[in-house]
Amino acid sequence: MDRRSFLKNSTIGAGAAGATALAAPAYAQGNRTLTLVTTWGRGLAGVHDSAQRVADTITAMTDGTLTVDLKAAGELVGAFEVFDAVTSGQADMYHGADYYFVGQHPGYAFFTSVPFGMTAQELSNWYYHAGGMELHDELGQIFGLKSFLAGNTGAQAGGWFRNEVTGPEDFQGLKFRMPGLGGQALGKMGASVQNLPGAEVYQALASGAIDGTEWIGPWADEKAGFQEITKTYYTAGFHEPGAGLSLATNRDVFDSLTPAQQKIIEIASAECHQWNLAQFLMNNGAALDRLQSAGVTVREFPESVWDAMGTASTETLDENMGDEIFARIRESYNDSMRKSSNWIQRSESAYRAQRDRVMG
Amino acid sequence: MDRRSFLKNSTIGAGAAGATALAAPAYAQGNRTLTLVTTWGRGLAGVHDSAQRVADTITAMTDGTLTVDLKAAGELVGAFEVFDAVTSGQADMYHGADYYFVGQHPGYAFFTSVPFGMTAQELSNWYYHAGGMELHDELGQIFGLKSFLAGNTGAQAGGWFRNEVTGPEDFQGLKFRMPGLGGQALGKMGASVQNLPGAEVYQALASGAIDGTEWIGPWADEKAGFQEITKTYYTAGFHEPGAGLSLATNRDVFDSLTPAQQKIIEIASAECHQWNLAQFLMNNGAALDRLQSAGVTVREFPESVWDAMGTASTETLDENMGDEIFARIRESYNDSMRKSSNWIQRSESAYRAQRDRVMG
Repeated sequence: MDRRSFLKNSTIGAGAAGATALAAPAYAQGNRTLTLVTTWGRGLAGVHDSAQRVADTITAMTDGTLTVDLKAAGELVGAFEVFDAVTSGQADMYHGADYYFVGQHPGYAFFTSVPFGMTAQELSNWYYHAGGMELHDELGQIFGLKSFLAGNTGAQAGGWFRNEVTGPEDFQGLKFRMPGLGGQALGKMGASVQNLPGAEVYQALASGAIDGTEWIGPWADEKAGFQEITKTYYTAGFHEPGAGLSLATNRDVFDSLTPAQQKIIEIASAECHQWNLAQFLMNNGAALDRLQSAGVTVREFPESVWDAMGTASTETLDENMGDEIFARIRESYNDSMRKSSNWIQRSESAYRAQRDRVMG
Repeated sequence: MDRRSFLKNSTIGAGAAGATALAAPAYAQGNRTLTLVTTWGRGLAGVHDSAQRVADTITAMTDGTLTVDLKAAGELVGAFEVFDAVTSGQADMYHGADYYFVGQHPGYAFFTSVPFGMTAQELSNWYYHAGGMELHDELGQIFGLKSFLAGNTGAQAGGWFRNEVTGPEDFQGLKFRMPGLGGQALGKMGASVQNLPGAEVYQALASGAIDGTEWIGPWADEKAGFQEITKTYYTAGFHEPGAGLSLATNRDVFDSLTPAQQKIIEIASAECHQWNLAQFLMNNGAALDRLQSAGVTVREFPESVWDAMGTASTETLDENMGDEIFARIRESYNDSMRKSSNWIQRSESAYRAQRDRVMG
């Protein structure tokens, strides 16, 4: 899909321009409530927390001129319906993982995570200083959204399996929950991949509808209760090495706000990206200890599996290169990752190796 | 120094309580300009940028009710005079590295960086989710400040030397610029350590007043021009593995603001912590390439030097343990570092090793 022809023919685009001119003066007066729908059930640790935090921060900073009213998944619309709800104007904002919307545009994958892609820090570097935010905005213009990163889970765990994974052949026919391009890559390895909202995963695993699942990491996974069903857990995964979460506002609504309110939404989102990442990273270690105390066996994938995941991931990304925007985002992303990764390796990683060696 | 007895006898503390009750109603009306003094010259890449960003973000989010007017080092007060300027009320806020103020309280070291201490991510984890921010606030209460992290340089480079460092004996008598507890540790290794503001380092190195210096990393160091004077550069350093920068507001002034304005200062600071870290990490790689093209030789310290730095660093930290607050901060800091470091190693570092192996 070519962006310019899409925009030209889009009723969303045409509607946006018209509505803004009329609505701005009215919106700018007085206090408003913005409805925020999310892809998260209220019980989902970390991800729901980040949606609630960005909502509360916007409300607090605008001193009551904006009140963000959070409706969790299922309270107004279903988890995967939030994108359409906001583009259509049924809700004002959504908080979610943009790779749920690769069906709307494959480029959205980069704003959550792609297999063998960026760590959370590399994503920050790209997003805030090497064009990532501008590319996110370009996607948003197609659909009538103003999007910002507003949460991050850090490197996600490989997930929960019924049995040990001894080689890539173990993925043949495996019914596994994994969204985004990571899930598509797992499909190439023979898995029967399902994309379920977080709140539905426990029941699917418990009922045997799926054989295994990734969710996030020890802390969020423990809260979800997967250890009650299976005891085999893989820590490092290939599929989401630093998963960003997004706050997207209907563009008509965003354009109708004052410059100060717009800046508040932008900065509250960015602050939440950092806050949420630190939240996951601070809680995961202790949670992993508790899981192990509860009888969970922690494993790492053998190299043969990582190799197969690498091949499948590259194929998956390559298949989308016919889309001009996807290709442009991928080039920007890879270029930034290469540049910032080398320095991090040379400075922080070298330091950490010495700290471990000297201080034990 | 015991905190409670300090507070009881402090005219700052007494003045703060009185001024707040009187001043709040007047301050809450209308528009105000807050004067922000910094420890940075305007030409200092990254650090001045973060001070300017947090100033501009506060101004933009408060819609003109607060305008933050930045005075760089020397424009109103000298770099190292900002702490006293803000505690005394001469200025409203400072932006700087809090380890410049270990003379006021040694506990401030932890809110920039301590030798063999936290990476930037570990600092975020502790600060926002394991009590770090509350301990920073406890120090601020002693001196009449409300402090937040508001910038981060990432892991700093070992610095610039006239000659290759072949062993710990090379530090004997070396005149070297390094602030904070890292500098004190280097003193134990026999160096003659000087603490100079950033804007004065180039001249000191050029004149031979110092033999070498650390500053930040390739990008900021290149802008400072040290490669014009010497060509030997060490990448990973022991002294500041993730240096936080702070925005501190006079506590009377802070208490006089509306809750929305206070929240805006807090969130603008946190956002700047992430933005600035990503800025340094995105720019350092290309700058290192340029330095090497300009004839700079890049080296790593030999293990014997790291070992000596480790011994000296532990001694330096141990010497401050007689201070109750310092001891409490150090315990909280080390506990948090241990917990979050293990998980990062197991997840993100394990992933990165596989990404490097599989993708090259």
